[in-house]
Amino acid sequence: MSKRSGRLVRCLWFFVAVAALFFLGFTAGWFAKPTPAGHTDPASGEYLQEFLEEMQPSQIREHLRKFTRLPHLSGTEQNLKYAEQIQSEWRDFGLDSVEMVPYDVLLSYPNASQPNYIAVVDAEGREVFNTSLAEPVPEGYEDVGNIVPPYSAFSAPGQPQGDLVYVNYGRTEDFFQLQRQMGINVTGNIVIVRYGKIFRGNKVKNAISAGAKGIILFSDPADYSAAGVQPFPEGWNLPGGGAQRGNVMNMNGAGDPLTPGYPAKEYIYRSRLEDGVGLPSIPVHPIGYHDAFHLLKNMGGPVPPENWKGALNVSYRIGPGFTEDFNNQSVRMKIYTNNQVTRIYNVIGRIPGALEPDRYVILGGHRDAWVFGGIDPMSGAAVVHETVRSAGKLLSKGWRPRRTIIFASWDAEEFGLQGSTEWAEDHAKLLQERAVAYINADSAIEGMYTLRVDCSPSLHTLVYQLTKQILSPEQGEEGLSLYDSWHKKDNWTGDRDAPRINKLGSGSDFEAYFVRLGIAAARARYTKDWKSERFSSYPVYHTVYETFELVEKFYDPTFRRLRTVAQVRGGLLLLLADSQLLPLDAQQYALALDKYSRSIANLARRHLPAMQEHQVSFDSLSSAVDNFTLAATHFHQRLLNLNTHNALQVRLMNDQLMYLERTFIDPLGLPGRPFYRHVIFAPSSHNKYAGESFPGIYDALFDIEHAADPATAWREVKRQISIAAFTVDAAAATLMPPA
Amino acid sequence: MSKRSGRLVRCLWFFVAVAALFFLGFTAGWFAKPTPAGHTDPASGEYLQEFLEEMQPSQIREHLRKFTRLPHLSGTEQNLKYAEQIQSEWRDFGLDSVEMVPYDVLLSYPNASQPNYIAVVDAEGREVFNTSLAEPVPEGYEDVGNIVPPYSAFSAPGQPQGDLVYVNYGRTEDFFQLQRQMGINVTGNIVIVRYGKIFRGNKVKNAISAGAKGIILFSDPADYSAAGVQPFPEGWNLPGGGAQRGNVMNMNGAGDPLTPGYPAKEYIYRSRLEDGVGLPSIPVHPIGYHDAFHLLKNMGGPVPPENWKGALNVSYRIGPGFTEDFNNQSVRMKIYTNNQVTRIYNVIGRIPGALEPDRYVILGGHRDAWVFGGIDPMSGAAVVHETVRSAGKLLSKGWRPRRTIIFASWDAEEFGLQGSTEWAEDHAKLLQERAVAYINADSAIEGMYTLRVDCSPSLHTLVYQLTKQILSPEQGEEGLSLYDSWHKKDNWTGDRDAPRINKLGSGSDFEAYFVRLGIAAARARYTKDWKSERFSSYPVYHTVYETFELVEKFYDPTFRRLRTVAQVRGGLLLLLADSQLLPLDAQQYALALDKYSRSIANLARRHLPAMQEHQVSFDSLSSAVDNFTLAATHFHQRLLNLNTHNALQVRLMNDQLMYLERTFIDPLGLPGRPFYRHVIFAPSSHNKYAGESFPGIYDALFDIEHAADPATAWREVKRQISIAAFTVDAAAATLMPPA
Repeated sequence: MSKRSGRLVRCLWFFVAVAALFFLGFTAGWFAKPTPAGHTDPASGEYLQEFLEEMQPSQIREHLRKFTRLPHLSGTEQNLKYAEQIQSEWRDFGLDSVEMVPYDVLLSYPNASQPNYIAVVDAEGREVFNTSLAEPVPEGYEDVGNIVPPYSAFSAPGQPQGDLVYVNYGRTEDFFQLQRQMGINVTGNIVIVRYGKIFRGNKVKNAISAGAKGIILFSDPADYSAAGVQPFPEGWNLPGGGAQRGNVMNMNGAGDPLTPGYPAKEYIYRSRLEDGVGLPSIPVHPIGYHDAFHLLKNMGGPVPPENWKGALNVSYRIGPGFTEDFNNQSVRMKIYTNNQVTRIYNVIGRIPGALEPDRYVILGGHRDAWVFGGIDPMSGAAVVHETVRSAGKLLSKGWRPRRTIIFASWDAEEFGLQGSTEWAEDHAKLLQERAVAYINADSAIEGMYTLRVDCSPSLHTLVYQLTKQILSPEQGEEGLSLYDSWHKKDNWTGDRDAPRINKLGSGSDFEAYFVRLGIAAARARYTKDWKSERFSSYPVYHTVYETFELVEKFYDPTFRRLRTVAQVRGGLLLLLADSQLLPLDAQQYALALDKYSRSIANLARRHLPAMQEHQVSFDSLSSAVDNFTLAATHFHQRLLNLNTHNALQVRLMNDQLMYLERTFIDPLGLPGRPFYRHVIFAPSSHNKYAGESFPGIYDALFDIEHAADPATAWREVKRQISIAAFTVDAAAATLMPPA
Repeated sequence: MSKRSGRLVRCLWFFVAVAALFFLGFTAGWFAKPTPAGHTDPASGEYLQEFLEEMQPSQIREHLRKFTRLPHLSGTEQNLKYAEQIQSEWRDFGLDSVEMVPYDVLLSYPNASQPNYIAVVDAEGREVFNTSLAEPVPEGYEDVGNIVPPYSAFSAPGQPQGDLVYVNYGRTEDFFQLQRQMGINVTGNIVIVRYGKIFRGNKVKNAISAGAKGIILFSDPADYSAAGVQPFPEGWNLPGGGAQRGNVMNMNGAGDPLTPGYPAKEYIYRSRLEDGVGLPSIPVHPIGYHDAFHLLKNMGGPVPPENWKGALNVSYRIGPGFTEDFNNQSVRMKIYTNNQVTRIYNVIGRIPGALEPDRYVILGGHRDAWVFGGIDPMSGAAVVHETVRSAGKLLSKGWRPRRTIIFASWDAEEFGLQGSTEWAEDHAKLLQERAVAYINADSAIEGMYTLRVDCSPSLHTLVYQLTKQILSPEQGEEGLSLYDSWHKKDNWTGDRDAPRINKLGSGSDFEAYFVRLGIAAARARYTKDWKSERFSSYPVYHTVYETFELVEKFYDPTFRRLRTVAQVRGGLLLLLADSQLLPLDAQQYALALDKYSRSIANLARRHLPAMQEHQVSFDSLSSAVDNFTLAATHFHQRLLNLNTHNALQVRLMNDQLMYLERTFIDPLGLPGRPFYRHVIFAPSSHNKYAGESFPGIYDALFDIEHAADPATAWREVKRQISIAAFTVDAAAATLMPPA
C-alpha cells in the first residue's frame, strides 16, 4: 500500500467516523425529541388483558352482597348511605375524584298512613274483596323495614269506582281492537290490563286516551313464568303474591317532570304540578296474579280472542263489569300515592385522560332499587364497582388512559331515568362537545343463556373484537371465546353470520345520552334464550323477590356470568378511552342504515295503493344511504393512510368519528317529543322499551292504520322520510374530507 | 510537553471533536424532525399587512359599478347571471373551489298584470285617489326593465276596504296606547303606520293581532330625511315618490317558510301554504310620503300625542276614517301579490385550511337586491369581492391559511334571510362542530361618519387590535388609525373608554349562524353620526334610488370608506383563520355578561313591589356571571402558559374558545321561537332589528306591562332567569380545565 493510498484510507475512515458520529447524534437527537402525539403505541391492547384479568367473580359477589342487604328506594336515607359508601370505596380504589351530585326532582311514594288497594264492592258499598297490601316477604328478610309495597309511581291519587274492562296488554292495537272492532267504549270504566309486551306507561297513556278513569296492571302467569320452574324461593318464577312496581309516566326523555330540559338544581324554575311532563291523570295500581284472579274470575261480557287469554283459570271475558250473578258488584281503586320533590344523589367518579382530557367515555348505571335490587340494578352496580376497582389497580401500576373516564352511579332511574337525565341536562354542552361514548350498566343479568348487546352500529365491530378476547363463562365451554359461545347461541338471522346485536330502545339510563344527545352508546348483559323463553323480562322483575339469593341460587351461582358482563362493559370502556384511534366504525353504521331503510320502506309497502295515491317515495332516503355508505368507505380508506404520528391529524379524524352519532340528532326532536332527538334510533311512541329504526317514519306509518285523516297522516310520512333522508345525507357530509 | 501529555491532549481533542460532531448531529436531527404543531409562527401577523394593502378603492369602485347596472331581485334571471359572474371571477381570483348551491324557497312577487295600489273610494265605489304604481326612475336608468314596483313581499292578496286608523310606528306600545288608553279598536279597519323604529314585520304582526284587515306602511319625511340635505338625485334624502320595499314576514329565523328547520332541497317536504311560517294573513302595502299625504290629510278622529306626529303638513289625526266632509270616503287596498316557490342560488367559495381544514371561518353577504342594490347589498358584495381578490393574491404568493375560509354570496336575503338560512340548515351539523366565526357582509355603508361594529363580545378585543392596524379613510385624518378616529367619534358611553361596539340583532344573514347555531359573529360598516342623525336607516333604503351614483356622489366618492370596511371585514377573517391561537376573548364575554345581567336586573326593578310579591330574584344569574368571570380569567391564565409547540394542547384550548359561543345555545329555543336559540343575544319579540341581551327575560318583562295575568307573566320571568343562569353556569364549565 502506498503512503498516498494509506492516507486516503485514513481520510476515508476519518470521514466515515465523522459521518457515523453525526448519524449517531442525529438519530439520538431525532428520538430524544418528544413526539407530541405521545401515545403512539396502542397501550390499550397491552393493558386490556391485565384489566380484564383483574376482574374477579368473588369480588363481584361481595359487592352484590354488600349493596343488597337493605331496601334502597330513591330518595330514602339508605340509598344515600349506599351512595356515600360507593363514593368512599371508589376513592379507595384510586379514582382521582369522586363527587356526590344532588338534584331535587319529583318522586312519588305511597302514603305511609293510607295504603293503596283495590276493592270489589257490593251494591251497599261494602268491600267484598281487597287486594293485598304487600308482598309476602322472602325468608331471611322478615325483619327488614322500609320495603315499599307494590305501587305505580306517579299514579294520580283518587278513588274511582266503576266496571272493569279487560284490554289484554293495553297496547294501542288492543284498544283499537276493543273500540273499533268489538265496539266497546271504556269511558268511565276501570281498565284492567296485563303487564308485558310494552312499557307500562304506554298502557296507562292508552287507557287515559280511551277515557278510562283508572287502570289496574297485573302480572299474568302466562307472561311471568318459565315452564318447569318453581316460584321463588324454590325457583325463579314469579309467586302469585308478587307484583311489579314501576313508574307509569310518559315523559319521553324529559327527566324530572317539573324541570324539562334543565337540571333540577336549586335555582332552576319548577313548573306547577299541573304543568308537569307526562304525569298520568288517573289512578293506576299493580297487582299479582292471585289478586288478579279474584278481579277477573266473575267478569262478564264477550269472550276474548285467543291471543287475549292468559294462563289464569278464568275466561278473560272483556266486560264491562261482572256476570249477571255479580252485576251489583263493581270495583273501586283506593290510591293515595303522593308526588313529592325529593333530593337524589348521583355519584360521579373520574379518571382524567393523559392526552385528551377533553374526551369523555362514560360508564354509568343506577343504584336506586324498588326494594333490594338483587338484579335491578345491583347486579349492574356490582359490575361497575368491580370495573372501578380494576381500573384503580391499573392506575396504581402507572397506567393512565388517553381520554377521560367517567363512572356514574345514578339515582332515581326507577322514577323515569331522572338521575342520569338531570346530569345529562346539567352537562349537555360538555357532553355534546366532548363525549365519545356512553356504556350503560343496568341489570347485568336477566337470564342464564348468553350475552345480549344493544348498541349503536358504530360499536358493532368493537363489540365483536372485544368478545373474541373474553372467555365464555359457561360450564362445558372452557376455552371457548365469548364471541363463539354467543354466536352459536344467537346468530344474527338471515342477513349476517355473526352474533345478533340489537337496537337501543329506552327504559334505562343511556336514554338521555343516546336518544337526546347523540352519544354512541352500548348496553350489555347476560340474557335468556329469547327463542324458547317467552316470558316478559325476568319473572320477579321489580318485586321484593329480587334478592341476592335469587342471583346466587339461580342466575349466576359462580358469579362468572357477571364477571363476563363486567369484562364486556369494562373492556368497551377501556378500548374507547385508551385507543389512539377511536374504535368506532362508520361502515357498520352504513350497513345498519341500509338494512333499516329497506325495512321501513317494506313496512310502508303494506299500503302500496295509498302510497302511490299520496306520491310517497323512499328514493331520497335510499339515495342518502348510498351517499353515506360511500362516504363511510372513503373515510375508512383515509384512516388507513393516516399518519398516526401527527397528533393533529389523528385528532381531526377522531373528531369525525366522535361526532358521527351526533349528526343523527335533530334539535327539533321527533314530533311531539322534544327530548327524543335521534332520527335513526328512538323508542316508538307506542312502546318506550323497544328501539325503532327511523322512529319518525315508523310512528307516522303506525298512524296510517289508526288515524282519522289519511291525507294528513301521509303528509307526515312524507315529511318524516325527507327529514330522515336529509339527516343521513348530512351525516355523510361529516365523514368527507373536512374542507 | 511530554509525549504522554501530548497523547492526552490529542485524546482530549479527539473526544471534544467526537462530542462536537455528535452535538452537531443531535442538533441537526432535533431540528430536522418536523414539529407537528407546524404553524408555530403567527403567520397571520406577517400576512395581515400584505392582505390589507392589497385592497384597492379603485377595485371596489369597479366591482360596485359592475354589479349595480341592472336590477337583480332574488329569483330573477339577472340575479342568477350575477351569481355566475361572481362564481367565475372568484375562480379567476384563485379560490380552490367555487360552487353554486341552489334551493327552492317561497318568494313573493307583485302580479305582473294587476298592479298593487291603494285607492280612496267614494260612496259609489269610485276611486277618487290612487297611490302611484311605481317610483319615478332616476336619470340614466329610464330604459332599464324589470324594476319591481314598491311592494310588501309576502303580503296576503286581497282587496280590503275600510276606514283608516293611524297608529304611529305600529309598535306594541303604540297599539297598546291606541287600544287601552285611547280606547280605539281597529277591528275591521285598515291601519296606516309610519316606517321606522322597528322591523316592518313586527308592525304587521301587531296590526293582525289588533284585528286590522289591512295595513299601509309609509315613509314619513320626519324619519327619512336628514336636515339640510336634498332629495336624490340632488342629495341623498328620500324623494316623495320613493317607497320602501321589504318583506313583512314574522318567521323568527325559520328561513324558507315552507321548510322550517330543513334546507329547501328538492326532496325536502314542503308544508302547505296555509301552514307556512310567519306569513301575514292580511294585505300590506308600502307608499311614499307624497301618497301618504293624500291618505292622511282628511283623516278625522282625535288629535294624536306629540310623539305620534311626523313632518308632513297634516294633523296626524288617528281616525277611524276621514273628517265629516269626507266621511263617505273610505280606503281600499288592491293587492295581488303572489307567493311562489322559486329557485335561488348561493355562491360558495373555499380556501381549504393547511393545518386545520375542519375549522371554518366564513365571510358571507347577500347579492340579491330590491332593485339595483347600490348600497344594499352591493356595497357589501363589492367589499367581499375585493376580499376574495386579495386572498387570491396571497394564495398566489404561497400563503395558505391554517383554517378553512369560506366565502358566500347569499341569495334571497330580502325575502327573510333565506339563502343564508337554508345553507345553514343544510350544513348545520358541520357548522356546529367546526365553525369558528361568521363575518357578515351586508351594506358596507349607511353614513359618512365613522365605523360601526356589531359583534359577539368574544370578538371585541380582536376588533380593537385590528382597527389599530388600519388607517382612517377620512380626509383630514391622514395617519390617524381607524381605531383612534372611531374612538374619537363614538366612545363607549360611561362604563368604558373605547369605541362603542353594539350587540348583534337580526335583519341580516348572520342570524342563522349567530342566533340559531351559536357561532361567534361580527358585522362592520361605515355609519352615520347616531347622536345627530336621527333618521331611520339611510333615507333611500330599499328604493330605486339606491344606485351606484348614490354611493359615488354622496356616500363614498373616493371609495376609501368602503376600502376601510373591506379591511375590517377581511382583517377579521384573516386573523380568525390564520392565528395559531384563536383570537377570541372569553374575558370580554364575562364583562358583557356582567354588564347586561345588571342591566336586565335594573329593568326588572321598575316593578320592585311585584318582584317581591312574586319572589323574583336575579341572584342566580349574578352568581352564574361571577362563576363565568372566574372561569374566563383562569382560562386566559392557562392560555399564557400553553406550550404552543404541542399541537394537541393548542387544539384543546382552541376548541374551548370555539365552542364558547355555542354554549349559549338552548336547543329548545326562546319561547315560541324555536329557531332563536341564543340565550344571551337575540332580537326581541317586538323588534327583529334590535338585539336584546337576555332576550328571554326581556320579553317576559315586556309582557309584564302588556299581559293580562301577572302571575303567569312573573312565573315566566322566573323561568327565564333560571334558564339564563343555568346557561351562563354551563358556559363557565366549558372554560374550566376539561377533565
